[in-house]
Amino acid sequence: MKKNTKISSAVIKRLPRYRRYLYELKKKGIEKISSKEFSSLIGYTASQIRQDLNNFGGFGQQGYGYSVEGLYNEISAILGLDKDYKMVIVGAGNLGSAIAKYTHTYKGEFKLCAAFDVKKALIGQELDGFPIMDYENIVEYVEENDISIGIICVNKESAQEVADKLTFAGVNGIWNFAPVDIEVPSWVAIENVHLSDSLHSLAYHMNDIEKLENEKSKKAKAGK
Amino acid sequence: MKKNTKISSAVIKRLPRYRRYLYELKKKGIEKISSKEFSSLIGYTASQIRQDLNNFGGFGQQGYGYSVEGLYNEISAILGLDKDYKMVIVGAGNLGSAIAKYTHTYKGEFKLCAAFDVKKALIGQELDGFPIMDYENIVEYVEENDISIGIICVNKESAQEVADKLTFAGVNGIWNFAPVDIEVPSWVAIENVHLSDSLHSLAYHMNDIEKLENEKSKKAKAGK
Repeated sequence: MKKNTKISSAVIKRLPRYRRYLYELKKKGIEKISSKEFSSLIGYTASQIRQDLNNFGGFGQQGYGYSVEGLYNEISAILGLDKDYKMVIVGAGNLGSAIAKYTHTYKGEFKLCAAFDVKKALIGQELDGFPIMDYENIVEYVEENDISIGIICVNKESAQEVADKLTFAGVNGIWNFAPVDIEVPSWVAIENVHLSDSLHSLAYHMNDIEKLENEKSKKAKAGK
Repeated sequence: MKKNTKISSAVIKRLPRYRRYLYELKKKGIEKISSKEFSSLIGYTASQIRQDLNNFGGFGQQGYGYSVEGLYNEISAILGLDKDYKMVIVGAGNLGSAIAKYTHTYKGEFKLCAAFDVKKALIGQELDGFPIMDYENIVEYVEENDISIGIICVNKESAQEVADKLTFAGVNGIWNFAPVDIEVPSWVAIENVHLSDSLHSLAYHMNDIEKLENEKSKKAKAGK
């Protein structure tokens, strides 16, 4: 079924969302769904959905729709969620603790193994049930335990150094929560969660809406 | 200086990043920067940068470059960061606690005022120095204290109901951390932080890189 063409990054960004909705449908016992029904649920146009899913071969059938489970499994495989990933967190503060807790909601693919910190007071403690270990030993731990993802929850000053160490130790992916852009070699994938950027976008949209509302009310008054 | 044309959402998404880099330059005492220098720093092409910044009028001067402080202030104003925003957090668990701590790094614009929860054991406690209050009183609090942003840190089952209540109480913006898409009226801005989507993208890119590396090594072997 799969085509081997390169999939655009915009499509890749939408895939987790498709999967999320398919998972909910699956949980409700729904076996098939038309692109039109899917459209009204997920908020993309039916033609956008058909176009996106055509990247993975001829999934939908005219007049039949998509198989919920089939499509869910296919998208999971494309996203690489048919494998397991072992992870470590660096930085055992509040954010590290929240992310540790968050990763607990995963039953399968993403498995947190340990947390690391430089603070002597934290080493030996637990982070949401995981041992907090000495950052000095991280390279050895990553190598010995076949860790593939490093989660960075340290401040922006330390983030690049932590990324370098994780890369040196052999992770293939970095999930970065520090508010800074990190450089990694081409063989390492990186995903940044810049919370401040998200908050700034929110402020922009709030002001944009306010401007529109003001214009509307001016027009309404002028029309009187 | 400002043009009144509608700015595309792709440009808006890049603005916080421009602002972040300009802030670092400002801190280093750098007064002006050419689009070429800015390009090598931020990783967009010089023509992309010129095109983006042209949306806000003629900022750069041929042969002079951009004024770091001027551009920083202009982008801040466009993003609405020349005003103050009062915020409440709903959900005083680990994630709520991490987000509360995170918002502390802001000196000005974004001011957290209180946290709310339904759990009797949490009410009356503190969340990173903020009072945790009874969720039953949230509407009154938001109205009386002129709160404009509600941060949702509850589970996905409760998220829509919390959003409805925040909207009813009169917030203009919702920053949603629950792993679910929330519906709000047109006059409320919403920004979702879907952590799982970000983790799934990371997995995709890790697998994509692995595939490329495998192909490369196959080709190298075949070439021998």
